[in-house]
Amino acid sequence: MIRVAINGYGTIGKRVADAISAQDDMVISGVTKTKPSFGCDLAVRKGYPLYCTYDDEQKINAFHDAGYTCHGGLKTLLGVSDVVVDCSPGKHGAANLEKYKNAGIKWIFQGGEKHEMTGLSYTSCANHEQNLHAEGTRVVSCNTTGLSRTLIPLLESCGEISVECTMIRRAADPGDSDKGPINAIKPVLKVPSHHGPDVMSVEPRIKINSLAVAVPTTIMHMHAITVTLPQGHGMTTESILALWKSRPRIIIMNGGETGITTTAEVMEFARDIGRTWGDLHEIFVWEDGVKLVDNTLYYFQAIHQESDVVPENVDAIRALMGTESDWMASVRKTDEAITRMFS
Amino acid sequence: MIRVAINGYGTIGKRVADAISAQDDMVISGVTKTKPSFGCDLAVRKGYPLYCTYDDEQKINAFHDAGYTCHGGLKTLLGVSDVVVDCSPGKHGAANLEKYKNAGIKWIFQGGEKHEMTGLSYTSCANHEQNLHAEGTRVVSCNTTGLSRTLIPLLESCGEISVECTMIRRAADPGDSDKGPINAIKPVLKVPSHHGPDVMSVEPRIKINSLAVAVPTTIMHMHAITVTLPQGHGMTTESILALWKSRPRIIIMNGGETGITTTAEVMEFARDIGRTWGDLHEIFVWEDGVKLVDNTLYYFQAIHQESDVVPENVDAIRALMGTESDWMASVRKTDEAITRMFS
Amino acid sequence: MIRVAINGYGTIGKRVADAISAQDDMVISGVTKTKPSFGCDLAVRKGYPLYCTYDDEQKINAFHDAGYTCHGGLKTLLGVSDVVVDCSPGKHGAANLEKYKNAGIKWIFQGGEKHEMTGLSYTSCANHEQNLHAEGTRVVSCNTTGLSRTLIPLLESCGEISVECTMIRRAADPGDSDKGPINAIKPVLKVPSHHGPDVMSVEPRIKINSLAVAVPTTIMHMHAITVTLPQGHGMTTESILALWKSRPRIIIMNGGETGITTTAEVMEFARDIGRTWGDLHEIFVWEDGVKLVDNTLYYFQAIHQESDVVPENVDAIRALMGTESDWMASVRKTDEAITRMFS
Amino acid sequence: MIRVAINGYGTIGKRVADAISAQDDMVISGVTKTKPSFGCDLAVRKGYPLYCTYDDEQKINAFHDAGYTCHGGLKTLLGVSDVVVDCSPGKHGAANLEKYKNAGIKWIFQGGEKHEMTGLSYTSCANHEQNLHAEGTRVVSCNTTGLSRTLIPLLESCGEISVECTMIRRAADPGDSDKGPINAIKPVLKVPSHHGPDVMSVEPRIKINSLAVAVPTTIMHMHAITVTLPQGHGMTTESILALWKSRPRIIIMNGGETGITTTAEVMEFARDIGRTWGDLHEIFVWEDGVKLVDNTLYYFQAIHQESDVVPENVDAIRALMGTESDWMASVRKTDEAITRMFS
Repeated sequence: MIRVAINGYGTIGKRVADAISAQDDMVISGVTKTKPSFGCDLAVRKGYPLYCTYDDEQKINAFHDAGYTCHGGLKTLLGVSDVVVDCSPGKHGAANLEKYKNAGIKWIFQGGEKHEMTGLSYTSCANHEQNLHAEGTRVVSCNTTGLSRTLIPLLESCGEISVECTMIRRAADPGDSDKGPINAIKPVLKVPSHHGPDVMSVEPRIKINSLAVAVPTTIMHMHAITVTLPQGHGMTTESILALWKSRPRIIIMNGGETGITTTAEVMEFARDIGRTWGDLHEIFVWEDGVKLVDNTLYYFQAIHQESDVVPENVDAIRALMGTESDWMASVRKTDEAITRMFS
Repeated sequence: MIRVAINGYGTIGKRVADAISAQDDMVISGVTKTKPSFGCDLAVRKGYPLYCTYDDEQKINAFHDAGYTCHGGLKTLLGVSDVVVDCSPGKHGAANLEKYKNAGIKWIFQGGEKHEMTGLSYTSCANHEQNLHAEGTRVVSCNTTGLSRTLIPLLESCGEISVECTMIRRAADPGDSDKGPINAIKPVLKVPSHHGPDVMSVEPRIKINSLAVAVPTTIMHMHAITVTLPQGHGMTTESILALWKSRPRIIIMNGGETGITTTAEVMEFARDIGRTWGDLHEIFVWEDGVKLVDNTLYYFQAIHQESDVVPENVDAIRALMGTESDWMASVRKTDEAITRMFS
Repeated sequence: MIRVAINGYGTIGKRVADAISAQDDMVISGVTKTKPSFGCDLAVRKGYPLYCTYDDEQKINAFHDAGYTCHGGLKTLLGVSDVVVDCSPGKHGAANLEKYKNAGIKWIFQGGEKHEMTGLSYTSCANHEQNLHAEGTRVVSCNTTGLSRTLIPLLESCGEISVECTMIRRAADPGDSDKGPINAIKPVLKVPSHHGPDVMSVEPRIKINSLAVAVPTTIMHMHAITVTLPQGHGMTTESILALWKSRPRIIIMNGGETGITTTAEVMEFARDIGRTWGDLHEIFVWEDGVKLVDNTLYYFQAIHQESDVVPENVDAIRALMGTESDWMASVRKTDEAITRMFS
Repeated sequence: MIRVAINGYGTIGKRVADAISAQDDMVISGVTKTKPSFGCDLAVRKGYPLYCTYDDEQKINAFHDAGYTCHGGLKTLLGVSDVVVDCSPGKHGAANLEKYKNAGIKWIFQGGEKHEMTGLSYTSCANHEQNLHAEGTRVVSCNTTGLSRTLIPLLESCGEISVECTMIRRAADPGDSDKGPINAIKPVLKVPSHHGPDVMSVEPRIKINSLAVAVPTTIMHMHAITVTLPQGHGMTTESILALWKSRPRIIIMNGGETGITTTAEVMEFARDIGRTWGDLHEIFVWEDGVKLVDNTLYYFQAIHQESDVVPENVDAIRALMGTESDWMASVRKTDEAITRMFS
């Protein structure tokens, strides 16, 4: 059993913990919180050993004072773990990396950190093999993960692709009531944006640029994608849909037939199929919103920013530990366990 | 086993079906859809026999053509059921009532129908006894249910209360992308509104009026409530909180301590505790938002419009069938099964 | 000509400056900004002398470096003014008050400051006389101003009134894209809230309490109001409407007849009548949303948070300077000039 | 004086009427409404003769009954006009066209109608000359107008361009409280969308495709644009900015320097400069959001959907009447009059 520490039991951390816990080859050694809060109740409820983010006796005792059993600081947790998944809220990356290396265990960062820091990035469908037995890696962001899921198969089929993507991003998560805007569209003025090119951290052969805006919604990101295929690509709209249907973690549905025509109905679908938190780990592509015109492919995809990277973290653990060298096998194992758990 | 038909497998119907299915004394005899759609897949996935809302061969065959096994029309379904829960989208009440009476089975309508039609209404904590062995009843709306949960205990403690309530209502459900407003507040110009007085359909001794507005949010209603207690009431802010904590289906949390200060964080809490669809069957009251000033009690409560009536439907079935005369016993049984199922 | 300084040329300051500039008995002596920004262009465009909020040579020079003519710091501005309207963004009240007193000129604060600091508050219809020749005062907040407009006439007609008000507040101004929530309702957990009782700072005979929530809209506040009239009040719904129609700065329209049924249409009406910034200085009351039931009056009013206090500041200047002792005469003069200017 | 009829005095009609009225070479002969409403008061207030959309005595009399002077039906209005601007709410195009031809006057439709119906379309900067002395034309939509303003200069400089555009559209106008979504992103599943290619109705040499989504905001559309310039284009980011600055109806501002970083602040800027309704007739381009990378130009532009076509209608009238053959001269005349009127 691989012993996995979750450093930062928040939006992503709580989901990764459950996904790991559902696997039969790994176990949660502990999760960290900075201070007593409702997240501690949740960890206790789930049976995850609780640790303090800091190795500071006073801060550790604060948990006891609040009635929680705290098993120690991060250092203690790392000592009883084989790999740590860093789900801390950013800006702590470099400092944490140092700690993980000192503890001599493997580590996984999330897409909020830069590729430059880890030197290696991960997406199941893109470069699982490249990550085998590595000391540590970075699971790319929700947006990059989503782009990889649909672009990698196209690249593999066509040999080369060139991509322009506009990312229409939810401005805040559902549980965040502080951030706006309430009634505005906010462009990311640094153009082209960093979002699209991050795909090249897992697959450098994809030529991609992006523009990004934030909009007043909380539930999903949307990508409006234009792909230029090479001459003689031999693809059709239908063959592209068939290709995607053959790949994991992509859901393809027809908006006209199902009535699922906005991200609201996509999220309602996710609630219906019973995943915890109403999550949708898959990328959602509208069948009737895909069209190949000569060499140019147009499509939309919706991304559940809170959860699409969750199964990727599980696969990344197997890659680092070297326990499963076939990415498809890992994905199948991960997803079956998640589905079994949640429905 | 009580055989329960769900007429209208939509937002409320799908939730009631699952809640019933989780009980050990009742079973879903079937659910109806007007035509093939994603809801049919969901019913099949859950193992609920699928029926057509209409007794029309052509419409029934449309299900077969779409690849679903349809067991017949509503009439057939009623014939194999002991009670029907009407979750149809309104305006069909009177016509449906006729059908249910003709089938000779018991029936439950939802709060969208008027009390005048059914002549009897139901809330677990208000008038379970009064509904015992009745032919049929109406489970009151999400708002009325929410008001009953906190007001009935006050009435029982004080003998009489007078209430003014402002209802700040979500303008559309999460899965509904058509309705607005996007950036406006919409008052219900008929004042006082019908919402509050509906409480009197289950407890006529509560004197209550209300004002209502719709606002651009999808997740919960909020009630801002002012209760005038009688002279010599003997209550304190603390004793009122203790009273509510002793009652079922009320969650009381401290906003300042937990960081749960808006409906966004309340819904995140519901997702965290793992209820399907992220539902919250309980009414949420902020401990630090309750204050008794002389004879006037001020408090806020948040209502999950999609789910607070769900367990009430289960209890109402037991009342009509006469299988459990103690409301608290029914509530306990219902809620334990729901919790067991969902977490 | 009364020389008026505007300390803080922002959302309120820019509006007050224009309203003052439209009068024939007062003139803008200057407006302050903390640093060069678009607001400076606006001041220049309008012909208002530009000053720096700080008496700091370096900060003053920053304006020159950016190409603006800056006439000096606040101290210099106060030296050429008879009265200063403080429209600074809060938290600077006490420090500014000291400066104004040292300069020996009269001062007006806005509702963001506490009544305790100024010891005197102002609403045209409530206590103009009481403010005559005072050293300084505080124009109450947009909400308090709105409440005074409709409640003072009721008090004057009935002798005593008791009020409960729920304030459904816009969470951010239209030009503010940072603040949320995007999809939530946020209750003000301190109950009863401070909003309603602030009316007593201008009219202590009104007994009033309030509850408040913030909602995801930017354009207007809404008040849901319940007034208890004394026995033998002699009023009817119609006589109350007639009373309000006879008072200034209240617009009464019928939602059913005009199609103006939400704050969106109210703001569109304001844009139609051509006020700069689409402002609505008046309180908007829906005729068909007013109803007197026995002793209890129910009504809604919509408040344009950015502008309803603007004409009040003009009147307050006349009160402090003692140049117009009749509040109605001042209001008439103010409003005619504003209307002449804007349409 | 050119006598102009406005058929449909609504969101666009009321703005076009004011813009025409501000010119010294044209006059409003009348405006139509379907029935008595607040729009009639507005027309009266502005001094525009009021007509009924229908030539139906009963409907005409309804205006008189409501206290308005109605000068007759549409037919009567067309009889005293030289040109009619059709601002009716769509679906009436073909029927109206027939009426206009029968009346023997010139006509202008808006972008809601198809190019196929009119056979000719209009944008000031694209094809004014082509519209000279034509019988009628169609002023293209707000989106197409916006695209033309920035793309035509690029085309003229480079000889050929190829464009991909993602349109992030406001889902409802500010005064519309019915439409949603409240919390979702809605893709236009027909891909590529019709929006971009409509530019080719005024300039067929531009190669363009688009994708479109609707988002929960009311104030502006946003375009995320990628332009491929031909080899040897000779442009730089700076020369493109200089090019646009030399063209009318484009505002270029630096988001980082001005703090205008979202559509909320853009609209606040428009309110500040004092245009009626807070309109912004110009396209807003962020200087720091423009970047040329090799042959690919990236930029964002914000479009005020309610008003950018307003001055175009004025110019189109001059084109049809043949009174001004130089588009730049017409634009200058139009815009000076609008600015004089509004500020």
